[in-house]
Amino acid sequence: MATFPLPPGSMIGILGGGQLGRMLALAAARLGLGVTILTPEAGAPAAAVSARTIVAPYNDAAALNDMAATCQVITFEFENIPANALDALARMGAALAPGPRALAVAQDRFDEKTFLNGAGAPTVAFAAVDSIDDLRDALQTLGAPLLLKTRRGGYDGKGQVWVSRADDVEVAMAQLGHRPCIAEAPADFRRELAIIAARARDGEIAVYPLTESHHENGILRRTSAPARAAPPVIASVERIAATILSTLDYVGVMGIELFERDDGALLVNEFAPRVHNTGHWTLDGCEVDQFEQHIRAVAGWPLGPTAATHHVEMTNLLGDEANDWEKLAREPETRLWLYGKGEARRGRKMGHVNRLRALDR
Amino acid sequence: MATFPLPPGSMIGILGGGQLGRMLALAAARLGLGVTILTPEAGAPAAAVSARTIVAPYNDAAALNDMAATCQVITFEFENIPANALDALARMGAALAPGPRALAVAQDRFDEKTFLNGAGAPTVAFAAVDSIDDLRDALQTLGAPLLLKTRRGGYDGKGQVWVSRADDVEVAMAQLGHRPCIAEAPADFRRELAIIAARARDGEIAVYPLTESHHENGILRRTSAPARAAPPVIASVERIAATILSTLDYVGVMGIELFERDDGALLVNEFAPRVHNTGHWTLDGCEVDQFEQHIRAVAGWPLGPTAATHHVEMTNLLGDEANDWEKLAREPETRLWLYGKGEARRGRKMGHVNRLRALDR
Repeated sequence: MATFPLPPGSMIGILGGGQLGRMLALAAARLGLGVTILTPEAGAPAAAVSARTIVAPYNDAAALNDMAATCQVITFEFENIPANALDALARMGAALAPGPRALAVAQDRFDEKTFLNGAGAPTVAFAAVDSIDDLRDALQTLGAPLLLKTRRGGYDGKGQVWVSRADDVEVAMAQLGHRPCIAEAPADFRRELAIIAARARDGEIAVYPLTESHHENGILRRTSAPARAAPPVIASVERIAATILSTLDYVGVMGIELFERDDGALLVNEFAPRVHNTGHWTLDGCEVDQFEQHIRAVAGWPLGPTAATHHVEMTNLLGDEANDWEKLAREPETRLWLYGKGEARRGRKMGHVNRLRALDR
Repeated sequence: MATFPLPPGSMIGILGGGQLGRMLALAAARLGLGVTILTPEAGAPAAAVSARTIVAPYNDAAALNDMAATCQVITFEFENIPANALDALARMGAALAPGPRALAVAQDRFDEKTFLNGAGAPTVAFAAVDSIDDLRDALQTLGAPLLLKTRRGGYDGKGQVWVSRADDVEVAMAQLGHRPCIAEAPADFRRELAIIAARARDGEIAVYPLTESHHENGILRRTSAPARAAPPVIASVERIAATILSTLDYVGVMGIELFERDDGALLVNEFAPRVHNTGHWTLDGCEVDQFEQHIRAVAGWPLGPTAATHHVEMTNLLGDEANDWEKLAREPETRLWLYGKGEARRGRKMGHVNRLRALDR
């Protein structure tokens, strides 16, 4: 069994090889820690900056055995890892951070909202929908329109559909493949907020400044941080974050997305048990960024300071927007991050820019 | 032939696999560029964060052919690369940055000082010493004591000896193995300064704020930046740096070490045709750090801004000082960089810390 804190030279396993894994690997390297990536995709963005890459399906027994035997702690950068992969790693005696429970809860939108309400974190009203009849009932209890989402899978706005009338229920269920769903009352919000929070092995919690986020077509477009918000709103978000982390006995960084309603009330939309796109601004705008913070937490190191050093507008570079790299590299206030992805498919996250300005005083 | 600027996805070759190569590889990854390392040492610090590592002697023809065929530009992180390796790469049509001339000049302390004086950059008085008689003559012309150094090789204070009296000349030459040497008059300085400067393919030059450096036993111990200095001193250092870079038609980042004499005059001690330990403070204290700047320059990208965002005290972690990582990770003002080296030999550079504070206004 590994003993924590893990000394420099230790190996951290990461399930998933995308840009989040890539930026985690860069952070681990700064601290003298190695990274082994498990990814089903050859040529994944994280592979080019990691000591070792295993290309195999997430539930490949030999690959998981190898990870458990060679990594002193294993984390993930992607929440759609099959739960049985984490279970297998736990049985092999691997140290997992965050633990399997956080992943399991986050993988099912109904379980997630049920958990959040149980932990005292407010959400929109919701109901499980397993059938056309359930959806009809939900239209009665939650009102119309409602947002129908598959309970599992789906990201960046995929796997969801609006339902406005009882006449639409059959088509809606068919569109989502008659899979188990959750119906959600509309959030009726004036803006979207997000917060990055970290919890160490000893229970210490550190939160980053609040972020305002803007989505387009279900994909995060840009964030602005630190967000202007009244001190009680900030305190409320921080309290919600701390409650979620503590209740899950969480270790690592988590991204939490919230709605601020017109009346000022806060609703948690969802949490991601990993480093998060709404925290990319911390790379250039905070004392210790979310990636180093996650590595510190899972390795059992003390957490780093989280104060903002700059105001940052983060903009995702989607698809061929990354072709503007030369122009972006010329902007003095802009820090450019590119993920090393080959094909610039429409809507694909190819990189991001952090545009800095002095903090508002 | 590669055309510049190199687009993201291009491969940058680096000769040398130490901590400088490691930090260059991290910077390249941020910009979506890949890195191939050529190093004679298996398990070199840069290998763990590079897309590809070739383990071979620097003048291995097959390895150099491979680098020339697969890398769109080749740079180095270490100035004791055999000059014939660069010549071979140039013959193979590889794009080299910096070019072979800068490396050749920097590899020979006599040629270096001759070049500096020719470019109008002042140095201490010096003389070539090829024999015991030459050394006796140097004691006459330069005065005693003088510092005798091998013309080639040697770093971190190795390969040099003080000579005080004519009686010592035979022992001194024997200590340095009767190799070709340079005799230098003592610098008589009140402090050591350093500056990191970059030059782009289009001739644009960017300089970083001045750094004050402190050596112990010939090894850099700590730097403080931006250094307090009178505006004419800063202007003078910047002019010297620009002259050196332009005269060499240099592409990339260079570290220049200077003496400030008691009378305020500046003398160039030496330059390193690469990223430099006196520039590690830029990692956490400047808009774009020296490693990203070097990658930008050699890839033909526009240079980034170089203003300081913090005052930084950089301290090297030598040998077992790196064992204090847990304590250092707990200091809120401290950013920790560890190089992934296995054995903490006495005096070996294992990492560094940047301690930040608000800029003096």
